[in-house]
Amino acid sequence: MPQSADTLPMEQVQAVANRPLEGVTVIDLGQIYNGPYATFLMAMAGARVIKVEPVGGEKMRRRGTVGGAMLPFAMLNSNKEFITLNLKSAEGVELLKKMVQKADILLENFAPGAMDRLGLGYDVLKEVNPGLVYASGTGYGSSGPNRDMLAMDLTIQAMSGVMASTGFPDRPPVKAGPALCDFFGGIHLYGAVMTALYNKAVTGKGMHVEVSMLESVYPSLSSTLGLYYGSGENPPRTGNRHGGMAEAPYNVYPCSDGHVALLCVSERHWESLLSAMHREDLIGVDRFSDLQHRVDNIDELDALIGGWTSGFTKAALVEVLTARRIPCAPVREIDEVVNDPHMHARGTLKRLEHPELGEVVLPAGPMFFGDSARAELIPSKAVGADNRHVFGDWLGLDEEELAALSRGGAF
Amino acid sequence: MPQSADTLPMEQVQAVANRPLEGVTVIDLGQIYNGPYATFLMAMAGARVIKVEPVGGEKMRRRGTVGGAMLPFAMLNSNKEFITLNLKSAEGVELLKKMVQKADILLENFAPGAMDRLGLGYDVLKEVNPGLVYASGTGYGSSGPNRDMLAMDLTIQAMSGVMASTGFPDRPPVKAGPALCDFFGGIHLYGAVMTALYNKAVTGKGMHVEVSMLESVYPSLSSTLGLYYGSGENPPRTGNRHGGMAEAPYNVYPCSDGHVALLCVSERHWESLLSAMHREDLIGVDRFSDLQHRVDNIDELDALIGGWTSGFTKAALVEVLTARRIPCAPVREIDEVVNDPHMHARGTLKRLEHPELGEVVLPAGPMFFGDSARAELIPSKAVGADNRHVFGDWLGLDEEELAALSRGGAF
Repeated sequence: MPQSADTLPMEQVQAVANRPLEGVTVIDLGQIYNGPYATFLMAMAGARVIKVEPVGGEKMRRRGTVGGAMLPFAMLNSNKEFITLNLKSAEGVELLKKMVQKADILLENFAPGAMDRLGLGYDVLKEVNPGLVYASGTGYGSSGPNRDMLAMDLTIQAMSGVMASTGFPDRPPVKAGPALCDFFGGIHLYGAVMTALYNKAVTGKGMHVEVSMLESVYPSLSSTLGLYYGSGENPPRTGNRHGGMAEAPYNVYPCSDGHVALLCVSERHWESLLSAMHREDLIGVDRFSDLQHRVDNIDELDALIGGWTSGFTKAALVEVLTARRIPCAPVREIDEVVNDPHMHARGTLKRLEHPELGEVVLPAGPMFFGDSARAELIPSKAVGADNRHVFGDWLGLDEEELAALSRGGAF
Repeated sequence: MPQSADTLPMEQVQAVANRPLEGVTVIDLGQIYNGPYATFLMAMAGARVIKVEPVGGEKMRRRGTVGGAMLPFAMLNSNKEFITLNLKSAEGVELLKKMVQKADILLENFAPGAMDRLGLGYDVLKEVNPGLVYASGTGYGSSGPNRDMLAMDLTIQAMSGVMASTGFPDRPPVKAGPALCDFFGGIHLYGAVMTALYNKAVTGKGMHVEVSMLESVYPSLSSTLGLYYGSGENPPRTGNRHGGMAEAPYNVYPCSDGHVALLCVSERHWESLLSAMHREDLIGVDRFSDLQHRVDNIDELDALIGGWTSGFTKAALVEVLTARRIPCAPVREIDEVVNDPHMHARGTLKRLEHPELGEVVLPAGPMFFGDSARAELIPSKAVGADNRHVFGDWLGLDEEELAALSRGGAF
């Protein structure tokens, strides 16, 4: 069991647990979702993550009044230390270089070229610390004809084929609800950094790693790409049917109080479903006799199943299907997801009191590392909350130096 | 520039490049998308990945006639070695244990408990090789009340809130086109394995890492969760508007030949857009004067913009917007994505001749590792193509042993 971290300072919290990134220091220049998610996962794996914000704080902190943007900030910035730095001042740049000397990883997701313009590109920082793993998250990458296109989750969903493959064929393309491009970018960047950190442990050398959102999404379109190659043309959107039209039944079916997702990936599933429907008479009939025939007659198939499911509540249908080991799940609403007893039991979601937001549910990250104690969740803090601790205790600046730098606007 | 790998055996290909996972050996028990994607990325980073299939080959190979399932198999299994093993035979299990003695990583994404039933659980294999990083990808995790629910991308999209947050409010929930749950699971598992591999390099000890698809998707719903917390109720689906209703304009707008995604994340963007529209008269008017007002009057806002965009082609609109540095992108069709000059220029998509599929475009993985040569793409091979090489050359079995094991059905 993890020990309580409520009463311990950050250093001791990290020392009590045997987490895999213990002793690793990360300078986090991430913003919005992409970069901060990567460094959040590092913090939860035991790294010391120092989040660097501009003097007024990251812009996302200020979106709190519209929608609920403070929650995403809190979700992605647990267990970090919070400092401010004016990277447009010479003193701010110098302070960052001092930090780089003592760090293992620097991560940023500014637009390509922005770090170079600040005088903080990899070519500069590798001279300061040759062992540094320097990570850049971008929309399109630091090279190539579209390098400078402005990239946000919405525009990458448009460019990547996510929208073309999402939604119903009789409606316009629609984005996926999750900010999957931001998060695919962030988690691939996490993976690239860990790969480089392993390599550094073996060779002693750092490197510059890079991941673009666009390229990190492409593999997830496998099913759609398969259908494209299979048919030789741009596939129509398939709604809730399989993106490659390679499974049937595979759909979301109506119930009296919502919807249930249901699929058969073997003949045994299909025969079990017919049995649950009391339609054993259809076992073996030509038009449904194998996967190819079911795909060919999919409209009739889905109407047949949907007519049957609509007589059930979601819960009743899931019970009937589960008893026969047919793959299914209710389509859950957001409040059901947030309060999911399963994720709370596993400790990947935690309910806690956040100093700015009150009681909220926050994720603890999906990675389990053997018998390591899971990190206690430490809520995100106010802008600059750790300035004195980081610049004073860690970098060793004295009171006079701190006061002068603060007066000069470096932080 | 990477050297040509066409004429070199696998060992030499790996030796010519300075890739970060050189010297690392992976036993890949992955299937479908989740596990194979994680190990594909390891192969592209320089690891030797030995894919273990049942004697008849992975089921996905046989879906080729329906849709285009052979392409996804090819996408996720480049640069691997291909062996077969009957893990339900004692000889097959013994061969796997011999491999484990010489490997760094074993990765599997069977249902929870399946490896234990084969006698290949972590408790067994850590005795064979205490340094082993043993990775399990699951749908729900190896613990918790829903552990044994059958998990596929479709059912996890239903359970995770992805469907609840995707689509238009007047239509049923719809899945995201990409198999994002499978791939979020796979890439988080990659990250967890690399974290453990780093830790092994430092401590000498292996560990069991685990990632569930459900938990790996949760953070990507940040915007929707923000709106849920902001409003206190289950948010309606927002179509192409921001999932947290925290940005406006933020939508997909009609053109004469398709759609364009467009958003403003600053007042400057908004004023530039009004200027492009020749509607400077609207700068500063109350109902659009700031983000909160634009969100409050979003229907009028979107109608205004959509009326203007519909007079353009996609290309013409993107040109006008880009000239004014307003974030935008065309909604691309699948063929545009596959043939994207940008990704081909960067080498993350490659056109090659696949022995079973003919000319196809395959991804080379989105991770860039400094000056390391990128791996040449080596197409996936036939079932058991490397049996002799792996069991003979690597494990050291002689002709007689190989023949006996083959006759006995071990591979």
